[in-house]
Amino acid sequence: MEAKLKELKCCLIEVDDLQSAAALLYWDQSTYMPSGGAAARARQTATLSRLAHEKFTTPALGKLLDELQPYEEQLPCDSDDASLIRVTRREYERAIKVPPAFMQKFYSHCSESYQVWTEARPANDFNMVRPCLEETLAMSRQMAEFFPGYEHIADPLIDFSDYGMKASDVRRIFSNLRERLVPIVDAITAQTPADDSCLHQTFPEERQLRFGIETIKRLGYDFERGRQDKTHHPFMTKFSLGDVRITTRSKEDDLSDALFSTIHEAGHGMYEQGIRMELDGTPLANGTSSGVHESQSRLWENVVGRSRRFWNCFYPRLQAEFSDQLGTVSLETFYRAINKVQKSLIRTDADEVTYNLHVMLRFELELDLLDGVLKVADLPDAWRERFQADFGIVPPDDRDGVLQDVHWYAGTIGGAFQGYTLGNILGAQFFASALDNHPEVFSEIEAGEFGTLHRWLKENIYQHGCKFTASELVQRVTGGSLQVEPYIAYLRQKYGELYELPCEESPVSNLD
Amino acid sequence: MEAKLKELKCCLIEVDDLQSAAALLYWDQSTYMPSGGAAARARQTATLSRLAHEKFTTPALGKLLDELQPYEEQLPCDSDDASLIRVTRREYERAIKVPPAFMQKFYSHCSESYQVWTEARPANDFNMVRPCLEETLAMSRQMAEFFPGYEHIADPLIDFSDYGMKASDVRRIFSNLRERLVPIVDAITAQTPADDSCLHQTFPEERQLRFGIETIKRLGYDFERGRQDKTHHPFMTKFSLGDVRITTRSKEDDLSDALFSTIHEAGHGMYEQGIRMELDGTPLANGTSSGVHESQSRLWENVVGRSRRFWNCFYPRLQAEFSDQLGTVSLETFYRAINKVQKSLIRTDADEVTYNLHVMLRFELELDLLDGVLKVADLPDAWRERFQADFGIVPPDDRDGVLQDVHWYAGTIGGAFQGYTLGNILGAQFFASALDNHPEVFSEIEAGEFGTLHRWLKENIYQHGCKFTASELVQRVTGGSLQVEPYIAYLRQKYGELYELPCEESPVSNLD
Repeated sequence: MEAKLKELKCCLIEVDDLQSAAALLYWDQSTYMPSGGAAARARQTATLSRLAHEKFTTPALGKLLDELQPYEEQLPCDSDDASLIRVTRREYERAIKVPPAFMQKFYSHCSESYQVWTEARPANDFNMVRPCLEETLAMSRQMAEFFPGYEHIADPLIDFSDYGMKASDVRRIFSNLRERLVPIVDAITAQTPADDSCLHQTFPEERQLRFGIETIKRLGYDFERGRQDKTHHPFMTKFSLGDVRITTRSKEDDLSDALFSTIHEAGHGMYEQGIRMELDGTPLANGTSSGVHESQSRLWENVVGRSRRFWNCFYPRLQAEFSDQLGTVSLETFYRAINKVQKSLIRTDADEVTYNLHVMLRFELELDLLDGVLKVADLPDAWRERFQADFGIVPPDDRDGVLQDVHWYAGTIGGAFQGYTLGNILGAQFFASALDNHPEVFSEIEAGEFGTLHRWLKENIYQHGCKFTASELVQRVTGGSLQVEPYIAYLRQKYGELYELPCEESPVSNLD
Repeated sequence: MEAKLKELKCCLIEVDDLQSAAALLYWDQSTYMPSGGAAARARQTATLSRLAHEKFTTPALGKLLDELQPYEEQLPCDSDDASLIRVTRREYERAIKVPPAFMQKFYSHCSESYQVWTEARPANDFNMVRPCLEETLAMSRQMAEFFPGYEHIADPLIDFSDYGMKASDVRRIFSNLRERLVPIVDAITAQTPADDSCLHQTFPEERQLRFGIETIKRLGYDFERGRQDKTHHPFMTKFSLGDVRITTRSKEDDLSDALFSTIHEAGHGMYEQGIRMELDGTPLANGTSSGVHESQSRLWENVVGRSRRFWNCFYPRLQAEFSDQLGTVSLETFYRAINKVQKSLIRTDADEVTYNLHVMLRFELELDLLDGVLKVADLPDAWRERFQADFGIVPPDDRDGVLQDVHWYAGTIGGAFQGYTLGNILGAQFFASALDNHPEVFSEIEAGEFGTLHRWLKENIYQHGCKFTASELVQRVTGGSLQVEPYIAYLRQKYGELYELPCEESPVSNLD
């Protein structure tokens, strides 16, 4: 059996090598590739992804998994080997359900649709990309149909990124969150908005990037096993557990853009850098779900990186770096500026409170599109109506409305957005657990030390990769299931100090 | 038949995609990869190379080539399609002769040997790497044995990089060159050496790189289809004909290092950027031999880049960039400095005259090792003796002697060095042909214009990729075979102006 297991690992590492090379092709395309390389690069990435898929779905691998089943059953469920066989089987069974010809057609369509979107968005022309989006919706439905037996047609698509979740689960969580979030949003936005003009001076890029790099080094992002480069859209990517890279961008007139996107991506990066090296090259060496992944980026970006304690320590450094711009700006002013809450148009620019409303809007429109109750042609109107209802404002155009996010224009409709809000919820829940176990985390943050928090996250979350599903992990870490209470408590605690908030009917316990 | 040809191209482009991805893995490793990525990267590169080899040597491809033979015979020999079938068959037949298991063992050995060498060289410890080198010699012989029927055991290894050449051909050319070169070297080195102290001041890296980039843009290196990054050893690499990259390095205390390595690699790069786009993704989209490739790097680096005419135009720019260092240095002093001829220890630092003696020394030691008349254990002594005989100096240690070049420690013994001197010879021969056809090339160089020369090289050499063998190409371009006369004439013309040279018995015609 050991020989069979070794054979399985050999197959998997070949797949991983192809996937890692494909990831490098993409990273290079986003960072350094000259424009002349574009045409061949698209083909090269497609070839490597296809070969990886072919190698992963070979019947020989299915046979190996069958043969290993008795062995798996003898092993403790949470052992590396049992987990490897179990997770590989799950992914194998998912992968073989989608015909390769469909995948190829789908990737090719996504790539074309993405190209059209890159022109349609600046031109504010939804109709230009509408036929693509109609085809995307049809293909998203087809994709779901390869997984019959679902309760809602979005379920298989949600399951791809947040394994084990269904539309009904997400709806229940979102509805619970919404009920308790909206009064907070309404109360804050009815009050005088924070003045964030201190963030909108001129901040030279080089110094912004230097400060960001020093900051994430302190948080624990390891530059011996990673690096940061500039891209149009920030992302994290991994070529092996020893090489987990992040990217960032900067705006000279917005200090918060590079800073918080750097911390955000470093959060993703620290998750994958923290996976146990023994899992490298296997399907276990990944984050376990999009929600858990996002919990780590949001925990570091918001719960830590936008906290008062953090800036008690880091603001003097920031002032020293930008003495001309911030020399006379008080910590309180700066702290309020980076935590300004407002109903705004763009999801990626939204504060941590209203962010979830953006996600919920998209999630519900996705379900309506997949259900067939909403036609693609009617999507811009639906967006405007829904936006008006949730935010009290109507987007002036589609560019900053329905066209703003790449997701629907370069992937499936369904499954792309829920992870962001699940991440906000889980980030607060995990942080509360860390604090329960290590109350000294707060004072360490205030001293610019993150070792205890980082070690706790590594020990309890990062190291396991995807050995455990998101819900198993939440159970192990918090002793229960996903709960919105810690997130609401976190928001009420933090923003209650800045704004008058109405009492909740059932007050939640204080985090601090 | 068109369908079969299309099928062939499909197979080949898949191989090319894998090879290009492997090349990117290597480029990234040399430029930006964090140290933590090293272990996985070696494996990833090996996997992709192996998969490319597997795909290229599949019997289905051999069958396709057989089926396409009648079609090929109908087509003009120099058509793209006939050339594609012919060159692919040649490479296929070569590739299937070497068992994949041997290749894997060999690559793995090279990688290990390279690692040992990176420690042995700074430690000046030949014995540390000797066992590896003995294994390399054994494997080089084995490699040659897969191609029985050779005249000399080095022939198959030479054929890999300089197709169609045998050891006896190279020996004849080298002997002919040597006879005419040694009197020049002896005459120059008996005279007062040039003063190159002006090159050894402090030159900030950033400005060195900027000047290099502006220079190669003028020569015609296309940054829309390439880029330059820094590496320990400069090289050129290609991911598609739209993405041909070069690398460079710099020394703050040696102005010539970055400058001429930049022009050298740009010469390689312009060759591959100049290949007709129709050949992209096929085995035709490569330089035709190591000698012809090197002819282009040496032509641009030396024949153009170290010429008086070139610096008549570019020296004022260089002085403007480095006014503190060169403001009071005359053009004549600078010109003599960059063309200083001396018997020195290191091949890669050698001037264009003595360079060939370094190559010949290595070439003959390779043949002796392969012949078995020289044992690896005796190689350091043989190096010293030979060096004493050729250069009149004995290397003080093995670090700057037998351990200086990576080639034997990371590849075969045999076939690695002859291309450098063939390149010197061919570069001068091609340049003489360009001048015959376009005498205005000289005045254009003096005006900082390179369009006529670049276009002529592209038209006559670059665009064809490897449709023609080196000897076919030389025949097409010069109307004859490889000749050392133009190279000797070039050297005598250039250095005769700087030094007293003895007359040749049969004087050659003047180039200018």
